[in-house]
Amino acid sequence: MRYTTFIDQGEARLGVISGDEIVDLAEAVPGAPSDLRTALAQGADLGALARRALENADAPRHALATAQHAPLLPEPGKTICLGLNYFDHAKEGGREKPEYPWFFYRGKSSLIGHGQAGVCPKVSTRFDYEAELAVVIGRTVPRHTAEADALQYVAGYSCFNDMSVRDYQKRTPQWTIGKNFDATGAFGPLLVTADELPPGATGLRIQSRLNGQVMQDADTTDMIWGVAETIALLSQCMTLEPGDAIIMGTPAGVGQARTPPVWMKPGDVVEIEIERVGLLRNPIVAEA
Amino acid sequence: MRYTTFIDQGEARLGVISGDEIVDLAEAVPGAPSDLRTALAQGADLGALARRALENADAPRHALATAQHAPLLPEPGKTICLGLNYFDHAKEGGREKPEYPWFFYRGKSSLIGHGQAGVCPKVSTRFDYEAELAVVIGRTVPRHTAEADALQYVAGYSCFNDMSVRDYQKRTPQWTIGKNFDATGAFGPLLVTADELPPGATGLRIQSRLNGQVMQDADTTDMIWGVAETIALLSQCMTLEPGDAIIMGTPAGVGQARTPPVWMKPGDVVEIEIERVGLLRNPIVAEA
Repeated sequence: MRYTTFIDQGEARLGVISGDEIVDLAEAVPGAPSDLRTALAQGADLGALARRALENADAPRHALATAQHAPLLPEPGKTICLGLNYFDHAKEGGREKPEYPWFFYRGKSSLIGHGQAGVCPKVSTRFDYEAELAVVIGRTVPRHTAEADALQYVAGYSCFNDMSVRDYQKRTPQWTIGKNFDATGAFGPLLVTADELPPGATGLRIQSRLNGQVMQDADTTDMIWGVAETIALLSQCMTLEPGDAIIMGTPAGVGQARTPPVWMKPGDVVEIEIERVGLLRNPIVAEA
Repeated sequence: MRYTTFIDQGEARLGVISGDEIVDLAEAVPGAPSDLRTALAQGADLGALARRALENADAPRHALATAQHAPLLPEPGKTICLGLNYFDHAKEGGREKPEYPWFFYRGKSSLIGHGQAGVCPKVSTRFDYEAELAVVIGRTVPRHTAEADALQYVAGYSCFNDMSVRDYQKRTPQWTIGKNFDATGAFGPLLVTADELPPGATGLRIQSRLNGQVMQDADTTDMIWGVAETIALLSQCMTLEPGDAIIMGTPAGVGQARTPPVWMKPGDVVEIEIERVGLLRNPIVAEA
């Protein structure tokens, strides 16, 4: 099944994809929640809920092509990102294979949805793209979960563009500030439930394109830490909860590693596409 | 005025302090919100609301001394922490004065309230305390706010113990994972509204005590980046929203910098006290 978070009358709503249309879940299924995090926290069976929504022929349909989207999780729990999770990207940055994931967090105010504008900051011109696989946690992960047991807690997968303000990212050893400018974390448009994809979403082509030109082109199999291992590692430290997201890092080809460097600027269009997971497109605008 | 977030019948509730009692805000004032973030997001006047609550002689009172507390913001927006924000602490870690704050984030699952147990992880013995001043944002901070205008957006101040799992903090250059173990970020018990304190909460004694022994003893005036400057710097990057918190970094005296190092262990009691802001006490237990 495929879900999305779209905007109807100014409000973010959880919808089920039906061909080229969106069915508003809470409108189609009486009592169903209107956002993904709440649905997961309530222990909803996303497959069963979607089937019930699609069976309701009277529920209003919204055209997917013209829908406005919010971030897939507009009010996220934790949004945990990995740095340097592809060998080739670590290498292009002059680094060896790291021995442990470089984790950092994103906050809500950094997130945007499919089609919403990524904002090129006033204080920097070094604005870069990063194609990433997003993992949405569906059920609470018990502490110290083994890698072999980890994937059962994944609700599904999505696309993420971890847009980075490179000079701020490198002002200190802590990358967090360069990853948390307003409107720099594009998330969506689809949640593809885990049952529709290979375990851990491996073997999928992942690309970024800037103004139509392919900038990153890799396979999710090349992640250093896979989804199951990452969940297991995190569970040694913290409780992953329904509606938390893990953003799995980016392959080689980012703008800062090119000669000369390529920076995004107002008027650009950036796309992230992951095979069978979706296409995330965002225009780039100047900060107002 | 002074607020706290306490637990009544299993639910976190916003309360107003009245001497040695707590008045449940939503019970005392019809229509008032039951949590601090919602109150701030609704633009509530915390002073006026508290006065109305205290005028209601019929509202049930809870004894402060025996109350159970939740984190001051149980469902926080962003929780933004500064590293190395006191000269003496930067120096004890072998570092020069940084040129920009080292920002990192904490997530919800790391937070605990006054009296709740800080959890010494299974995977580490290097569990350290950090006394910090917490700033709660009351109103949306416009982007690019000047330092001179920044303090008007502060709702108030609290205490924070930024308990750190030092080996995980240093496994990679990103400190985030070592700051996000479950039940390691103690936050509260009081919100002291900004009008009751010096501008930017400067000139206040800040201490940590481990089993009654003073481990850190400093003055908030010694922060490298003050509250106003930090808000101004952050506003160049992101929108600070009602219910966001900024955790202002710790002075010298942490356990890892001592000879020999001092680590917290199950059975310990750690206290953070900030003059006129409150006393935050937490027992330390082993992970279950």
